[in-house]
Amino acid sequence: MTTQLTRTPELAGLDGIWDPEVVTVVGASADTSKWGWFLARGALRGAGRRTVHLVNRRGVDVEGVPTVRSLAEIDGPLGLVVLSVPAASVPEVVDEALGRGATGFLGITAGIDRAVGRPGAERELAERIRAAGARIIGPNCLGIFDVQTELHLAWGEFAPGHIGVVSQSGQLGSEIAGLAAQRGLGVSRFVSVGNQVDVSAAEALAALADHDQTRVAILYAESFGDGAAVVEAVRRMRAAGKQTVVLTVGASGASQAAAASHTGSMTSGMDIVDAACRAAGAIRVETPTQAVELAALLSQAPLPAGPRVALVADSGGQGAVAADVADAAGLDVVPFSAERRALVADLLPADAGVGNPIDLAGGGEQDLATYARVVEACLEDADVDAVVLSGYFGSYAVDTPAQADQEQAVVETLAAAVAAGGKPVLLHSMCPQSSSLERARELGLPVYPSIESAIGALSGAVRIGRDARTVPAPTLPSSMPPVRGGYLAARVLLEAVGVSFPAAAEVRTVQDVRTATQELDGPWVLKADWIEHKTEHGAVVVGLADPEAAVAAFAEMHGRLGDGAYVLEAMDRRSHTVEVIAGLRHDPAFGPVVMVGAGGTEAELWRDTVLELAPVTAETAHTMLERLVSHRLLTGWRGRPAVDLDALAHTVAALSQLAGVPGVAEVEVNPLRAAPDGVLAVDALVIETEDEQA
Amino acid sequence: MTTQLTRTPELAGLDGIWDPEVVTVVGASADTSKWGWFLARGALRGAGRRTVHLVNRRGVDVEGVPTVRSLAEIDGPLGLVVLSVPAASVPEVVDEALGRGATGFLGITAGIDRAVGRPGAERELAERIRAAGARIIGPNCLGIFDVQTELHLAWGEFAPGHIGVVSQSGQLGSEIAGLAAQRGLGVSRFVSVGNQVDVSAAEALAALADHDQTRVAILYAESFGDGAAVVEAVRRMRAAGKQTVVLTVGASGASQAAAASHTGSMTSGMDIVDAACRAAGAIRVETPTQAVELAALLSQAPLPAGPRVALVADSGGQGAVAADVADAAGLDVVPFSAERRALVADLLPADAGVGNPIDLAGGGEQDLATYARVVEACLEDADVDAVVLSGYFGSYAVDTPAQADQEQAVVETLAAAVAAGGKPVLLHSMCPQSSSLERARELGLPVYPSIESAIGALSGAVRIGRDARTVPAPTLPSSMPPVRGGYLAARVLLEAVGVSFPAAAEVRTVQDVRTATQELDGPWVLKADWIEHKTEHGAVVVGLADPEAAVAAFAEMHGRLGDGAYVLEAMDRRSHTVEVIAGLRHDPAFGPVVMVGAGGTEAELWRDTVLELAPVTAETAHTMLERLVSHRLLTGWRGRPAVDLDALAHTVAALSQLAGVPGVAEVEVNPLRAAPDGVLAVDALVIETEDEQA
Repeated sequence: MTTQLTRTPELAGLDGIWDPEVVTVVGASADTSKWGWFLARGALRGAGRRTVHLVNRRGVDVEGVPTVRSLAEIDGPLGLVVLSVPAASVPEVVDEALGRGATGFLGITAGIDRAVGRPGAERELAERIRAAGARIIGPNCLGIFDVQTELHLAWGEFAPGHIGVVSQSGQLGSEIAGLAAQRGLGVSRFVSVGNQVDVSAAEALAALADHDQTRVAILYAESFGDGAAVVEAVRRMRAAGKQTVVLTVGASGASQAAAASHTGSMTSGMDIVDAACRAAGAIRVETPTQAVELAALLSQAPLPAGPRVALVADSGGQGAVAADVADAAGLDVVPFSAERRALVADLLPADAGVGNPIDLAGGGEQDLATYARVVEACLEDADVDAVVLSGYFGSYAVDTPAQADQEQAVVETLAAAVAAGGKPVLLHSMCPQSSSLERARELGLPVYPSIESAIGALSGAVRIGRDARTVPAPTLPSSMPPVRGGYLAARVLLEAVGVSFPAAAEVRTVQDVRTATQELDGPWVLKADWIEHKTEHGAVVVGLADPEAAVAAFAEMHGRLGDGAYVLEAMDRRSHTVEVIAGLRHDPAFGPVVMVGAGGTEAELWRDTVLELAPVTAETAHTMLERLVSHRLLTGWRGRPAVDLDALAHTVAALSQLAGVPGVAEVEVNPLRAAPDGVLAVDALVIETEDEQA
Repeated sequence: MTTQLTRTPELAGLDGIWDPEVVTVVGASADTSKWGWFLARGALRGAGRRTVHLVNRRGVDVEGVPTVRSLAEIDGPLGLVVLSVPAASVPEVVDEALGRGATGFLGITAGIDRAVGRPGAERELAERIRAAGARIIGPNCLGIFDVQTELHLAWGEFAPGHIGVVSQSGQLGSEIAGLAAQRGLGVSRFVSVGNQVDVSAAEALAALADHDQTRVAILYAESFGDGAAVVEAVRRMRAAGKQTVVLTVGASGASQAAAASHTGSMTSGMDIVDAACRAAGAIRVETPTQAVELAALLSQAPLPAGPRVALVADSGGQGAVAADVADAAGLDVVPFSAERRALVADLLPADAGVGNPIDLAGGGEQDLATYARVVEACLEDADVDAVVLSGYFGSYAVDTPAQADQEQAVVETLAAAVAAGGKPVLLHSMCPQSSSLERARELGLPVYPSIESAIGALSGAVRIGRDARTVPAPTLPSSMPPVRGGYLAARVLLEAVGVSFPAAAEVRTVQDVRTATQELDGPWVLKADWIEHKTEHGAVVVGLADPEAAVAAFAEMHGRLGDGAYVLEAMDRRSHTVEVIAGLRHDPAFGPVVMVGAGGTEAELWRDTVLELAPVTAETAHTMLERLVSHRLLTGWRGRPAVDLDALAHTVAALSQLAGVPGVAEVEVNPLRAAPDGVLAVDALVIETEDEQA
């Protein structure tokens, strides 16, 4: 069983799946505990809009509707054929339906390869379907739902709404849909992509760009076969003004192993998925609840322009908790100006907290209109990008019904202020549900059951799309040196794209060493060209201060390691250098990825590295450097001068261009020595792809 | 207004508050929107158990019960007097009630100092109350509730249950109680401590140790006046077999500022609160929701013995998400043995995932008893400390009511397995509520609405109490050197408790320097004794290889810095040293705290430090070292030999004994050079307390 996403979004032939003129359910059942019943019942809901055929082997009525015993009994087109029959009979049904001109298939049934007794049977089926000009979703899927076309071909119920769900796991997609419903939200289209023998998750996601009812998408994927297709699908969504929330797994060894056994495919590293999401403009979350809570904001409210949040709470405790949670989530609880404090103070009792967070101190309770006035006073602040109202508000309609109208009026004022100002207002209410909160959702004010969910959603909305960029094509000189192993070849390759090294010479004899000491400024470093981990293997000697020391070191190393290419290199003795690591590698799903991180002997300990899809421009490389914890080492740590950040960014960008060189599997420059007067690579390794080596 | 917790738990006189024979509500109201109405209504609910007097200035009936116009009209004792009158009249009511032998007060009214026009008026009131042998809770509080004694003297409603809530913020306590009710849990006792002029949060917490109905406590505190009292209260709770969850604020600058303006007191650093919680055996959470979700487990289920969790999910996606969330939360998704995998495989369909996480792959749906069998197979594994069942289970009773009984039977089997094995089973259900989930809660299986909430609670339960310890009294030599500034004095003080330094001599003249070079092994380091940040002020020269270099360095430094005590010290030139920082400081709430962290010039960047309440034993110091990210540097990093960890732990423990030396405000040893053959401090600073300096 394979679930690789193998195509870039093509979208051809999908309309016959989302909005078929005819639906034929093969395997309709009268037993309400069977999938065949759910599918038949769902299909009949669209009977006002399209022809529905139900096929049941015994011809029993389903939901009071007559069925036929076989496809042969149906007159006219079959349209979209829903496959809910035993796995072994699926190929036969498909072939018969194709003969009858079926335009699409929805494969619910699982285990076809096993039932047929031949791995690849599902794939062959898909090839026959595509050759006939039709498409298939699944098999082994939970079904599809589309609120816009009254298409309900899935197990379970869906609350209608504006969230498009595309899921590699039917059950997890179902959990997402259920969580949305619990929060007063709903689903616009649900696509359980199953084994993706034809329609991939990427394609189903891309199709949401043109789906009017969809305002935001949640994608659950366990593996990203064709990562570029996913990136492209997210871009199409963004071009249509819609955001994508990505849920995936593989952060732990246990989930990697589980996904491998579950879908037969590899998960990508979370740092690589995050790099792809950043480039595409999507955002990754870790759980279905986080996905829905973020989608709640993205589907209803304006995007915040930045991370500066004003917190308005019914009590000092709630405001302080909100501030801590917001700060930890990377939001900026921006201090208010004296003017803003005075404006807020005018609206509130003497005990109130008028900084940020605001503590209403009973001001809201005394006059409900105060809630709206204070939030408006925050929204008017040019230094505020979003407001979170946290605490009791939303409970009045339940606890003191006489105040329900007043509370609703506040909600309407807030919604009008959001519409006028284009800044989101989020509500965290102690009340699980009330008419006021329902009204808030209707008017586009997202409502959250905990302060961490409100803050988590806001934090996601602040980050989504912020660093979206088009990954450029590599820019390379017209002729590139060959890709070969060894330090000298790596130097030549990296120098060709613009990475600088200290001057060096290849030396094979004592005489070569003597000549090189005359040509290169000392002191020198001696290295064995072909050895990878030089320090561990005694293949590097530093600080050779005079020619005799260089000769002696060469004699010793040559005696030990034998004939071969050695390198005598001018030693980098500049002051105020900071060691950095940079590299390039290839992810099976997302392709080339460039890395930069803190260097030095303890680099591995601190795990201070950042990734981006490669290549990157110098501008993007600058943003990578800024994300490092060790960025402060580069900008003048404890009174030292700053390193040449432009040169460092250009070096990272230059190295990343090797993404375009065939035969390069991996590049590591370690260390890259950044100093105030420039950047020098002093060791480098290029690993060839296995094909090239063979 | 001050809210310091100023007492250690004394508990005397509190029974008259939790279970008074008489309650007198002064300020009872017939207006259902008024506090006086809530308090009167609540008091009347206990009328079957105690005498209730209602005082209303106009003598109107409240809830059909007659009131009196003044205390004078009441015959007999007043018992617990609830103060819900305008702030200015509170002192008069208190004094009259004390004259009538009132045994306790509940101060709802806020703003007494301001109304009386004198800061400290509340405190004076408390002193008069205590002098009369009575106690007061509040003022400025939301009230108290006790399910055991039918005492409901608070705004709002409380679902009865087993969680004791003690809150410095009434509203936040109310949010906690509401969240508990939403999760099918409830409150055993609720204490809004308000301004804590008498009964402190620590005392109210300690009282829960003897409160039968309370199984677990949630404490919300914005400041910890007497931190030792809080630590002691948590210990009393633990001694009674009850856990304490601590919610506090101050992690961000915004919340620190808000708390200071709200309660007039300082928050403690989160790392210090965490150290105190670790020592006491409590655990800190960041939000009310986290507090309730953890309390749900602690109040119902056995504590997990360790972090090894088995994850059982209805689908591969849900299992993988659970594994990633568990791994990130520090739990151990322990791989199953081949035997365990085979046992699980026997229970499930061919497609199932039988490692950890387990993917039931429809096995549960086919036969509900499978849920119980698989969970039991996990519980029987000696390598498993807890099981989380995640996904669809819990929904059958709603989606297919015919299976409700079967689902309930599974719940009962699971509960029996928990009781028999003493290991917790947590449920995460996609279903918001069902009869099965209600039954699960009744039987002590905690139920969660999201996988992250289940995992968060389990992770908290794994950590709570794990490192609880009695902070020992400092052990000091019978006579200690004086506490003075300067490096030499710091050396003497630290050497007295057992910290080692390189040999050194005080030098004031060139002749002293020459003498010292004969007595001490070179090379040497020269330092100016009295200068704190020596490197920045040119007050240290290292690597003085011969006596003339030492003399020259002395002449230069003396010429620049003038007469005074200088130190010539043998330079530590050992190989394979790792630099560490260690220190001691005093927190206003929790007292002395010992710190150890990664050293070196980049230490501040990586923020790799850990704290414990001081002093610590060498054993505790070892656990501190193990918590450092840089611990791996100490244990043999990249082929280097390990440092002498015992010597390092002993040094940290030795330094921490200075907690017992009067006059020591702060100690910093930086760097402490740890090597395979021992540990040497090569710079140290002792800061005297201001009193001592004065």
